[in-house]
Amino acid sequence: MTTNHLISEIKKKQSFLCIGLDVDLDKIPQHLLQKEDPIFEFNKEIIDATHHLCVAYKPNTAFYEAYGLKGWRALEKTINYLNENHPNIFTIADAKRGDIGNTSTMYAKAFFEDLQFDSVTVAPYMGKDSVEPFLAFEDKHTIMLALTSNIGAFDFQTLSVNNQELYKEVLEVSKTWTNSENLMYVVGATKAEFLAEIRQIVPDSFLLVPGVGAQGGNLQDVCKYGMNDTVGLLINSSRGIIYASNKEDFATAAAHKAQDLQQQMAVELNDCF
Amino acid sequence: MTTNHLISEIKKKQSFLCIGLDVDLDKIPQHLLQKEDPIFEFNKEIIDATHHLCVAYKPNTAFYEAYGLKGWRALEKTINYLNENHPNIFTIADAKRGDIGNTSTMYAKAFFEDLQFDSVTVAPYMGKDSVEPFLAFEDKHTIMLALTSNIGAFDFQTLSVNNQELYKEVLEVSKTWTNSENLMYVVGATKAEFLAEIRQIVPDSFLLVPGVGAQGGNLQDVCKYGMNDTVGLLINSSRGIIYASNKEDFATAAAHKAQDLQQQMAVELNDCF
Repeated sequence: MTTNHLISEIKKKQSFLCIGLDVDLDKIPQHLLQKEDPIFEFNKEIIDATHHLCVAYKPNTAFYEAYGLKGWRALEKTINYLNENHPNIFTIADAKRGDIGNTSTMYAKAFFEDLQFDSVTVAPYMGKDSVEPFLAFEDKHTIMLALTSNIGAFDFQTLSVNNQELYKEVLEVSKTWTNSENLMYVVGATKAEFLAEIRQIVPDSFLLVPGVGAQGGNLQDVCKYGMNDTVGLLINSSRGIIYASNKEDFATAAAHKAQDLQQQMAVELNDCF
Repeated sequence: MTTNHLISEIKKKQSFLCIGLDVDLDKIPQHLLQKEDPIFEFNKEIIDATHHLCVAYKPNTAFYEAYGLKGWRALEKTINYLNENHPNIFTIADAKRGDIGNTSTMYAKAFFEDLQFDSVTVAPYMGKDSVEPFLAFEDKHTIMLALTSNIGAFDFQTLSVNNQELYKEVLEVSKTWTNSENLMYVVGATKAEFLAEIRQIVPDSFLLVPGVGAQGGNLQDVCKYGMNDTVGLLINSSRGIIYASNKEDFATAAAHKAQDLQQQMAVELNDCF
């Protein structure tokens, strides 16, 4: 999917919501556990109930790998279901991969070719030749960790290098990489005021913002500091939406939570389009 | 597996060789492609021919994920084959994972509980709460990237923070984490002279050293600068061993290459035990 396609979907749906599909069998409604593939059934019902309210879905691979082969199969069924039924929805494999050159190419093939995701998240620690193999894929997007929303973000990401924080150095340097126009960045919402400085470095890039809701971030602040003239934001909510209820009404409850966020986003979009 | 168990295996086999099982279907012998599971068949023959010459195997998950469900199944069969037939061999899932707390726990479950690897590689960028969930598993080992063997290592890892290179800061800080005794570190062999300084920071930790052979590192230099009084080294070779031949004799050819390295290692071990 091209960036322009994503932007037009945001306009049409009046939403820049991404829903995180982080399926934990200990948290989903009990009645689903009797199904042949509880993880996929859960995702399918969530997608059926919320697809008109969001522009992206983001399964985090950890939650699938934890269930081994069954989990990987559920991930495959989920992305296939999305691509067949909702081809206008942007899909993110939240995998945080990164390895040396030829190995990163294998990861890129896994997510872009085998599973056919539109994008994948990557970690920057191993530098340019660990990320460029992902950037080589046309109309695919590589979402690199810059400033994450966890407390450990302050261990290394905010240390000073070359007179600026490491995450800013990561942003600056990544702009020089081949096909850097295919980069987006992860920026946690718990530090919304940092977004103003980040926007000075990457004014045009899309930012994937986790941490609104469960992790304490505020939608209005994120928009105030992070929105650009083509929106430039995908705001992710996982637990706050998908675990709104653990009863049979879970999908309806998820849709209500998603709608709350979509309506707040529509207000913010008035200032943009 | 405990660290003492690993050390006693090194003594017994006179080897600290780790063999990387990075299976690329474009590189393996053509006759294997007719088998039902070419990836597993390749690994099985390599393991059968080399298990007496090495103390560890390290499948890199990228090479399995690239083949989707079939690949993940081959990874599962490979680790099961190792655990059933060679329980004294140390197994490393080279996955370079890392995510926020509860999500890292899911990754730890994937590799330590579901697949039953002895260890997994992780990336440090997200800090303490992204790594500690792995460290919580008893008799399991978390091998954190410090200084990698690719050219991109110089993009961020060697930048100066707090008056030292970032990778040294990563080493220092990680020593303060809960259960840090379960940490090992990835240190590329292409910068063997850096090992002397690394040993000052983590004198007792095991270092997993890729980059000997194909990537230009030298075994003698690595031992000179990196060995401690319980060896403290696992030296990995992947392509240099497993792709020694792409004919029907590939497993024998791999064993010859592994034996070359094992014999050099036995000489180095004379200085240690």
